[in-house]
Amino acid sequence: MIKVAGIPFDANSSFLKGSSYAPRRIRLMDIDGSANAFAENGLEVLNGVTYNDMGDINFANTNPAAAYETIHSFVATQLMPDDKLLCLGGDHSISFPIIAAYAKQYPDLHILHIDAHADLYDNFDDNPYSHASPFARIMEAGLAQSLTQVGIRTLNTHQREQAKRFGVHITAMKDFTPACIDAIKGPLYVSLDLDVLDPAFAPGVSHHEPGGLSTRQLLQLLQNIKVPVVGADIVEYNPTRDVHNMTAMVAYKLLKELIAIMV
Amino acid sequence: MIKVAGIPFDANSSFLKGSSYAPRRIRLMDIDGSANAFAENGLEVLNGVTYNDMGDINFANTNPAAAYETIHSFVATQLMPDDKLLCLGGDHSISFPIIAAYAKQYPDLHILHIDAHADLYDNFDDNPYSHASPFARIMEAGLAQSLTQVGIRTLNTHQREQAKRFGVHITAMKDFTPACIDAIKGPLYVSLDLDVLDPAFAPGVSHHEPGGLSTRQLLQLLQNIKVPVVGADIVEYNPTRDVHNMTAMVAYKLLKELIAIMV
Amino acid sequence: MIKVAGIPFDANSSFLKGSSYAPRRIRLMDIDGSANAFAENGLEVLNGVTYNDMGDINFANTNPAAAYETIHSFVATQLMPDDKLLCLGGDHSISFPIIAAYAKQYPDLHILHIDAHADLYDNFDDNPYSHASPFARIMEAGLAQSLTQVGIRTLNTHQREQAKRFGVHITAMKDFTPACIDAIKGPLYVSLDLDVLDPAFAPGVSHHEPGGLSTRQLLQLLQNIKVPVVGADIVEYNPTRDVHNMTAMVAYKLLKELIAIMV
Amino acid sequence: MIKVAGIPFDANSSFLKGSSYAPRRIRLMDIDGSANAFAENGLEVLNGVTYNDMGDINFANTNPAAAYETIHSFVATQLMPDDKLLCLGGDHSISFPIIAAYAKQYPDLHILHIDAHADLYDNFDDNPYSHASPFARIMEAGLAQSLTQVGIRTLNTHQREQAKRFGVHITAMKDFTPACIDAIKGPLYVSLDLDVLDPAFAPGVSHHEPGGLSTRQLLQLLQNIKVPVVGADIVEYNPTRDVHNMTAMVAYKLLKELIAIMV
Amino acid sequence: MIKVAGIPFDANSSFLKGSSYAPRRIRLMDIDGSANAFAENGLEVLNGVTYNDMGDINFANTNPAAAYETIHSFVATQLMPDDKLLCLGGDHSISFPIIAAYAKQYPDLHILHIDAHADLYDNFDDNPYSHASPFARIMEAGLAQSLTQVGIRTLNTHQREQAKRFGVHITAMKDFTPACIDAIKGPLYVSLDLDVLDPAFAPGVSHHEPGGLSTRQLLQLLQNIKVPVVGADIVEYNPTRDVHNMTAMVAYKLLKELIAIMV
Amino acid sequence: MIKVAGIPFDANSSFLKGSSYAPRRIRLMDIDGSANAFAENGLEVLNGVTYNDMGDINFANTNPAAAYETIHSFVATQLMPDDKLLCLGGDHSISFPIIAAYAKQYPDLHILHIDAHADLYDNFDDNPYSHASPFARIMEAGLAQSLTQVGIRTLNTHQREQAKRFGVHITAMKDFTPACIDAIKGPLYVSLDLDVLDPAFAPGVSHHEPGGLSTRQLLQLLQNIKVPVVGADIVEYNPTRDVHNMTAMVAYKLLKELIAIMV
Repeated sequence: MIKVAGIPFDANSSFLKGSSYAPRRIRLMDIDGSANAFAENGLEVLNGVTYNDMGDINFANTNPAAAYETIHSFVATQLMPDDKLLCLGGDHSISFPIIAAYAKQYPDLHILHIDAHADLYDNFDDNPYSHASPFARIMEAGLAQSLTQVGIRTLNTHQREQAKRFGVHITAMKDFTPACIDAIKGPLYVSLDLDVLDPAFAPGVSHHEPGGLSTRQLLQLLQNIKVPVVGADIVEYNPTRDVHNMTAMVAYKLLKELIAIMV
Repeated sequence: MIKVAGIPFDANSSFLKGSSYAPRRIRLMDIDGSANAFAENGLEVLNGVTYNDMGDINFANTNPAAAYETIHSFVATQLMPDDKLLCLGGDHSISFPIIAAYAKQYPDLHILHIDAHADLYDNFDDNPYSHASPFARIMEAGLAQSLTQVGIRTLNTHQREQAKRFGVHITAMKDFTPACIDAIKGPLYVSLDLDVLDPAFAPGVSHHEPGGLSTRQLLQLLQNIKVPVVGADIVEYNPTRDVHNMTAMVAYKLLKELIAIMV
Repeated sequence: MIKVAGIPFDANSSFLKGSSYAPRRIRLMDIDGSANAFAENGLEVLNGVTYNDMGDINFANTNPAAAYETIHSFVATQLMPDDKLLCLGGDHSISFPIIAAYAKQYPDLHILHIDAHADLYDNFDDNPYSHASPFARIMEAGLAQSLTQVGIRTLNTHQREQAKRFGVHITAMKDFTPACIDAIKGPLYVSLDLDVLDPAFAPGVSHHEPGGLSTRQLLQLLQNIKVPVVGADIVEYNPTRDVHNMTAMVAYKLLKELIAIMV
Repeated sequence: MIKVAGIPFDANSSFLKGSSYAPRRIRLMDIDGSANAFAENGLEVLNGVTYNDMGDINFANTNPAAAYETIHSFVATQLMPDDKLLCLGGDHSISFPIIAAYAKQYPDLHILHIDAHADLYDNFDDNPYSHASPFARIMEAGLAQSLTQVGIRTLNTHQREQAKRFGVHITAMKDFTPACIDAIKGPLYVSLDLDVLDPAFAPGVSHHEPGGLSTRQLLQLLQNIKVPVVGADIVEYNPTRDVHNMTAMVAYKLLKELIAIMV
Repeated sequence: MIKVAGIPFDANSSFLKGSSYAPRRIRLMDIDGSANAFAENGLEVLNGVTYNDMGDINFANTNPAAAYETIHSFVATQLMPDDKLLCLGGDHSISFPIIAAYAKQYPDLHILHIDAHADLYDNFDDNPYSHASPFARIMEAGLAQSLTQVGIRTLNTHQREQAKRFGVHITAMKDFTPACIDAIKGPLYVSLDLDVLDPAFAPGVSHHEPGGLSTRQLLQLLQNIKVPVVGADIVEYNPTRDVHNMTAMVAYKLLKELIAIMV
Repeated sequence: MIKVAGIPFDANSSFLKGSSYAPRRIRLMDIDGSANAFAENGLEVLNGVTYNDMGDINFANTNPAAAYETIHSFVATQLMPDDKLLCLGGDHSISFPIIAAYAKQYPDLHILHIDAHADLYDNFDDNPYSHASPFARIMEAGLAQSLTQVGIRTLNTHQREQAKRFGVHITAMKDFTPACIDAIKGPLYVSLDLDVLDPAFAPGVSHHEPGGLSTRQLLQLLQNIKVPVVGADIVEYNPTRDVHNMTAMVAYKLLKELIAIMV
């Protein structure tokens, strides 16, 4: 069974808050956004049929360590042997506790991380849970067999060194081709930061980084995945920056397409 | 002679109204939008020289059946043997009466329908004239020798069956290449729904469907048409959703380019 | 040494004013825009290290002839033998005095002009300094060995004749390929009008001309330049039309990338 | 018990659609909008405590007559002897069936109608259920002992005559004072069209009519009601026109204040 | 007969251009803006009945002196003995030539100037026709018996001295009361700069000056004029800054109300 | 000497970040916003003449306790016997360390707090420095002889009790009259949260709370202060929510007016 859950936590964001409001806005598109429920491969994606919506997690406060525990424990509980989880963030810090829980069930887990930023900072503003650091934490803890990053276009010297240290496979945005993930292995976890898209396609994100993927290029990338996808997240949608819900519609479409490849 | 006419009717829209305000806004771009009057092939596109602007049709009320008659009768009257008509919608429901009038003069008419949606619903909200159904009506009535759809990315099971029933040639957006219309035949009618464009390029439409064509891809598609184009429409521009008249400028440019291939 | 200077002059604009506010907004992105200081080739682009920011020129009034002198004299003074200048406009009229000063130091100067418009008008509104005419003035004065224009999509008959008269190499937008500048020669001056980008990527410009480059295509074009770049400008950013500073971020990124190829 | 219900119907709108998306957006403000749950008189307004949220009515299609029946029957069923209903539209056409149901329980009902428009058209576009006509229908049917309108600023000759015919007490916007409703009687039904507010305060409505109330003036008007309020509606919020959810927040605040005077 | 004319000239603007696009946008509201044709006193304001729309003046170029002549000569020609003219700008520089023509027919003309700015600069950027100076020019030339300014909130020392020099009656915004024009005399010309309104009510102006009139306060001011109004202008509406046509609707409403007091 | 300083700290914000970008945007209005430098009482407000701009404080990280120390120590150092400080936030948490430093020099300090919210929470999200709590901290520490709050419209039961506990004089927004501060004493510190304004006038704030002051009402309140003002802050301007810099202009105008009453 595929389960969808909202993880409305944005207190680890370095620049703007707002992604905690994302899950409810994405779900609104189901009814309010003029879209229908079909993925492009013809699958009808319905709550209660194709997937179960578990609603949103509650957070007692904004403490990062406590949030880690809340998310980790939720995922560990939900992730029954035949289950797959698709989480709607929240900021990118949520991927660390999710993948920590996944790693226990999937010791051979591989990660596809689609993003404008590598999120590999060793230390960002003294917050180990910062949304700038989840993949540093994940690789330090040995939670993945491999980490493949696609769409990156903001590498600085420090993160370049971190990538080398952790053996990350990076396809920078300037070298992007649809074939860049042909060698990826499964079981695969897909972590999708919406700012991998050019701000023209997804203005509703906290970090505008020009020169990104088009929505179509992203859809093709996802539709070309050939290995089993066992989990995924869609993070960093920020409704407070959106224009006419344009980005909410993109997130809703990606939700349908990810479910279509997870089934 | 090429004639341009505005058909400001949006009462068959299922989601939002507003496209009835499109024709006047598109014409404003002629003076207010910083563009010049030249198409990309070097043709100067001038009212009174290259084409005649017939103004907007008036509608007595919002009754769908009456609107069908008003539009059909207007087109039948205007479409003299050497004339070609380019209509500015309004919503997509206007294409049914236009093409019904065309079919009488062009019994061998072929249709190129460029859109995010197939508009092939047998029954949408009990309104046979719904903007979700014009191409079902057109194909039921046998008004075209062939129907080619490009850019579609919202097919559900029902419309997939309708497409099979009517023998529609569909190039889904995920399979788009510039060569997809190489086999098309003429005389050709081009029905252009602006939501075929990605919402990044055309935010001013009622239905945002991410993952669409870029404006350049659409221009290339049109510029590659090799068969005679005898009529066209540009529909579903919705000024109430536009940002800084960005979409009005796209519509105005497409108007010039369509005239340049109709001449 | 690379010097960056703001030239906040927009009184030669034909349609809208506002580009005089561009330099300060682009610099704000350094701190306020969530970006880091690295170019995509890994170079860290820092004021005081990689380049020196000379601030903004002051203009006593809006007289076009006086502005020409102010800009020309500033550039002539700043352009020491080992210096390279990157100017932030202002409207496109600033390129004429800048290049006039460059031509004295670089008698063999070549120009790459990236723009939606050819800016070759012989006479626009009786203002010889109009932002519609700088490249007519430059070529009349014999200031460049060659002029290569990329991205043009608004050629009218007059400008087509002007291009022929001046021997301009034009790659129209409809014929764009990344290889279109393979034959270009140096020393090269790059004049970059942000409206070469599709309005989807750069809404904050005075002239929306649909069907333009994506930001990624523009970055690739710049990153593929193989000859020495001795000067550059980024013009026509208009903050009064921007949405969420999206275009300011594009300009800031292009500033970093241009510096990375000028070093 | 106070019951809140969403009535997401906008097919009787003459100009724009979109108010059917209002109820869900207003409820979102409860969590997403930075407000707290207290009315200005100090009452905490909580679902399950102060009121019960009955969710949204479903409509099988957009037929006006069927919608009338659906709404009427819902209200008739919900309106138990000690209940009070606050309905969130939807367009203003919903007030006719709601008040028709109220009239059966409250034969001595008085109505306070706060709006920029009198909504008294005898016939608008041949649709008796048009959102331009509910108060003509209500008065024709004798459903109210008195009708008091406040904020009106668009009276034409026809509606002026209708007002005289039905004995409507109108305080035009140009004559507005806080004391204008001092003589009103109860039991009172308050029908609140958000376009009574100036568009500066409530941009998210279908009909912008400048020169309206400030939000504070409207709050004062409501807080000064001295007679028992037995029912209310808040209509014509149109999320597709809103800016940063500003109008959703206004509607949410008015919801709290109306509940505070209905308790 | 009341005549309405558009004067689309904005080349004398010091900050932003765009007001030249105002007349066509204001007229669009007649059909596209959901308003009706009635003024608040019950008068129906119809083109061809209540007034005659003369269309827009054409300008050969943007030369200020030539524009002065064009406007002056147009007004002198149109202003037959029983005629009254209402001009839609354009920037505020148009009031100088209009009033110069009026002064010939009305040697006893009084002026009511409603604005955030006094527009009394002796010399602004060396342009005697600047939109910062029309009332300096008018008073120097002795074109009015009296000048009354209302809403001013940007007086600097220079303009304070100019006001004293010319004997201008100023009611600063901070001292505004509805009674401030009780002593005004006729025949009266009303020059209305939309930036007298607070930017909350009229965002679509070039100069945002907070702390202004509400739309209702402005309507009351106009409706309280007791002397004959023989001419008027509405200037500085800038569509390029408008939000959802909110300011176009304000201008359209003011047009109706001004006509209602000129009849 | 009046000193102006930017305090770009927003890590204590509970809902949205962004106010740390405020000081630079407010200063931009000096040049970019079409305003002049005069306050409404005729005083010219010039950096270097009327006041000295000290620039922005730097923060090493986002730790709340460290930020308290940084701000407190900065103010303690700057506040020489004859100096007055006007600080531009940042969120409202900055007022606690500023006033703590003021209290040492002014043991008889009184506070005028103008805000939509009382900011009196004993504990908000376990952060004693939260922007929801500064006035609880200030009163607990006995830093003021009196606290007067104006414009409040979100009192809940807890804050009502806190206000009683601390003896706060509250004029709720619903009871606002210009005379509400007639009894206030000096020396006075004015803490001005821009969300006291209705969101129509100041959309660029993190917390939209409808029903607030108009900009003119706020200006009148400030202009009516009769006691010596020895310090002030303007907080919670959030550029990421602003529309066309409308709120930046309001903040810039309030800066001038506050300086005019501090001189």
